[in-house]
Amino acid sequence: MNRGTVLATIITIGDELLIGQTIDTNSAWMAQELNKIGIWVHRRIAIGDVWKDIWQSLDEESKLSDIILITGGLGPTADDITKPLLCQYFDGKMVVNEEAEANVRNIFENILKRPLIERNLKQAEVPDVCTVIPNKRGTAPGMWFEKNGKYFVSMPGVPHEMKGMMHYSVMPMLQKKFTMAPIIHRTLLTAGIGESFLAERIQEFEKNLPTNIKLAYLPNYGMVKLRLTTAAYDSRTHIELEALFDILKQQVSDVMVVDEDITLQEAVGRLLTTRHQTLGTAESCTGGYIAHLLTSISGSSNYYKGGVVSYANEVKEEILSVEKETLDAKGAVSEETAIEMMKGALQALNTDYAIATTGVMGPTGGTLSKPVGNVWVAVGNSEKVRTHEFHFRFDRQRNIELTANNALNMLRKFIVENS
Amino acid sequence: MNRGTVLATIITIGDELLIGQTIDTNSAWMAQELNKIGIWVHRRIAIGDVWKDIWQSLDEESKLSDIILITGGLGPTADDITKPLLCQYFDGKMVVNEEAEANVRNIFENILKRPLIERNLKQAEVPDVCTVIPNKRGTAPGMWFEKNGKYFVSMPGVPHEMKGMMHYSVMPMLQKKFTMAPIIHRTLLTAGIGESFLAERIQEFEKNLPTNIKLAYLPNYGMVKLRLTTAAYDSRTHIELEALFDILKQQVSDVMVVDEDITLQEAVGRLLTTRHQTLGTAESCTGGYIAHLLTSISGSSNYYKGGVVSYANEVKEEILSVEKETLDAKGAVSEETAIEMMKGALQALNTDYAIATTGVMGPTGGTLSKPVGNVWVAVGNSEKVRTHEFHFRFDRQRNIELTANNALNMLRKFIVENS
Repeated sequence: MNRGTVLATIITIGDELLIGQTIDTNSAWMAQELNKIGIWVHRRIAIGDVWKDIWQSLDEESKLSDIILITGGLGPTADDITKPLLCQYFDGKMVVNEEAEANVRNIFENILKRPLIERNLKQAEVPDVCTVIPNKRGTAPGMWFEKNGKYFVSMPGVPHEMKGMMHYSVMPMLQKKFTMAPIIHRTLLTAGIGESFLAERIQEFEKNLPTNIKLAYLPNYGMVKLRLTTAAYDSRTHIELEALFDILKQQVSDVMVVDEDITLQEAVGRLLTTRHQTLGTAESCTGGYIAHLLTSISGSSNYYKGGVVSYANEVKEEILSVEKETLDAKGAVSEETAIEMMKGALQALNTDYAIATTGVMGPTGGTLSKPVGNVWVAVGNSEKVRTHEFHFRFDRQRNIELTANNALNMLRKFIVENS
Repeated sequence: MNRGTVLATIITIGDELLIGQTIDTNSAWMAQELNKIGIWVHRRIAIGDVWKDIWQSLDEESKLSDIILITGGLGPTADDITKPLLCQYFDGKMVVNEEAEANVRNIFENILKRPLIERNLKQAEVPDVCTVIPNKRGTAPGMWFEKNGKYFVSMPGVPHEMKGMMHYSVMPMLQKKFTMAPIIHRTLLTAGIGESFLAERIQEFEKNLPTNIKLAYLPNYGMVKLRLTTAAYDSRTHIELEALFDILKQQVSDVMVVDEDITLQEAVGRLLTTRHQTLGTAESCTGGYIAHLLTSISGSSNYYKGGVVSYANEVKEEILSVEKETLDAKGAVSEETAIEMMKGALQALNTDYAIATTGVMGPTGGTLSKPVGNVWVAVGNSEKVRTHEFHFRFDRQRNIELTANNALNMLRKFIVENS
């Protein structure tokens, strides 16, 4: 694939990333945004708050990339060394930036309503050789440097501060510096088919793809995304990509959830919105995770009315009206209980559809007849119900994710087939 | 700080990481595990499925590190090039590994119960110059190579497959190759105090730390973790670290949640377990996220009975018995509604404590009197209730996380002070 001509490296600074105490979500977001304007992130580096490691990475990465985006190490504490290092790296000296100082004072006086300490004011100092990037969401200003035709941008590691800077300053500044062909992706989501079976089915399609268009498989807990990517130098490439995407869609139509890069819960949300119908959840083993996925989407209150997390059997009986006899005779993890939970949710939440989950998530709690990973899901409306038994394995978090995705996909199919 | 003598680089391979379609959670987990046996991850690199980029990274990183751990690019599809590349890099030729082939056949016949295709059998081929690392959880075997005294380990990117290999094979193999001083961390969690105020308070402590012990601040949605780290070459260092950690604890005792590297929800879980008491949740704006945090912990069914996600007002009235008059007069986002939700949860779920949240998470739905970020939380038991109004900002996901953490911390304090 032609990856476009403008290459970027993202350098993430902070010991917390190297000892695994923090998971880096910034880089993924930055890469997505940069792709939209035609910048290809070809390397991402995470290093510690160590002078020589940072210095060396700046040297190396500026040989390989046009743009070096740096996050982290700008905090007010002693382990944050990025700013003095950049000052020295670019032969500058530290000066107080008035706009940044006014921003720090404003945040403390009007938003935090706390007394300002000396350490906070230090945040307003910047190297005199940089262009200051205002931080509307925090106290540490960003910095933009240029050296030997390469651009270096330093931003805080706090996600919403970095995002604000990227949006308001960095992206517009980069667009002024480069003329770029946007990198375009066309993505579709499949569910219920393994990566290798999908690959087998579309192998002829893949073999015949032109060299400038690339196909990727992105598997994720019971789902696989297929993505076509190209750098769209002209409208012809754009048209070619669309035509190929149409062929791909036809070849996987029976397992396709949606032909956009959206989540399963967004796809379900759209189905419900179009139909002016509502959904409720009754979760035992997923413990509120399906509700969380649904309510992560702004506007979900238009179709999601609510849910019951019935972790204890008593809650299944009291709120979801599951019969004590069912629980005694069949157990909490059974098809019968899943169905009664689903029906109870329809009733208690007064919705058009409901999803119910019950299972053994592990690592403890498994028995011979109901081992860890044994899950029952029921979806339905007041007229019909559909159930499925799953056998997952090991990992608790993985079992929760797999159950949630499979349950949402069962509901999606149910809605499509019953309305 | 002395970072120990054994250095590792983690190389993550896959375009999906560079375009931001996947968030890398593997590296954090691997770093934690490696730290426990005294291996310091000083660099993490993410690169695409590109022959020359992978080759070049292997060259470069083996100059800087003793161990190169590689994940990703081992799938059965055409974009996965890691295995043929490693075969060529280490001058090998591909051969079928019988154990790996038996594993692939077993997975398809006995677990997936699906027909095996040629592409899957390819998974059992490995370079003849590697030591095969068995994959008990998937079809792609891992590979261990040695060259010029450096160790290279290639594993699948699927998290639970990689974790299984690390646990059963890679970690024990590394421990045989190196004699290492374990890197030890002592971590405490604070809540409700900003990073710079914490730094101000403990600046003398920080200034007087010996050079071999390092202090880090790890802020995260309303909480800050403080971590002391050292490489424990002898028992003296261990004792020194413990003594300093005790001093640190005293200095932050009023804002400390727990003196271990556990989450807030784990800390709450321990309080409830010790007291043999139970908890329920009534979530509007957090939409099940608090329930999810609580139920992510194995064994949480011992103290968490369940929750109600009352997204629609109708659900607040019907299941949580919030008065219609309260909703009409005060609105869903109000102290009164939060209190009635909390009391309703105590009643409906029959628990000792309950948490209730109601607010405007954004980005839409704000009004002048109740802007985005306005949240009410109530926690309590049958005798007492405590409420707090928050004013967060922008980001929906951030507001959900901040509300959840603050609510859990309010409950934690309530339990400590009222029992």
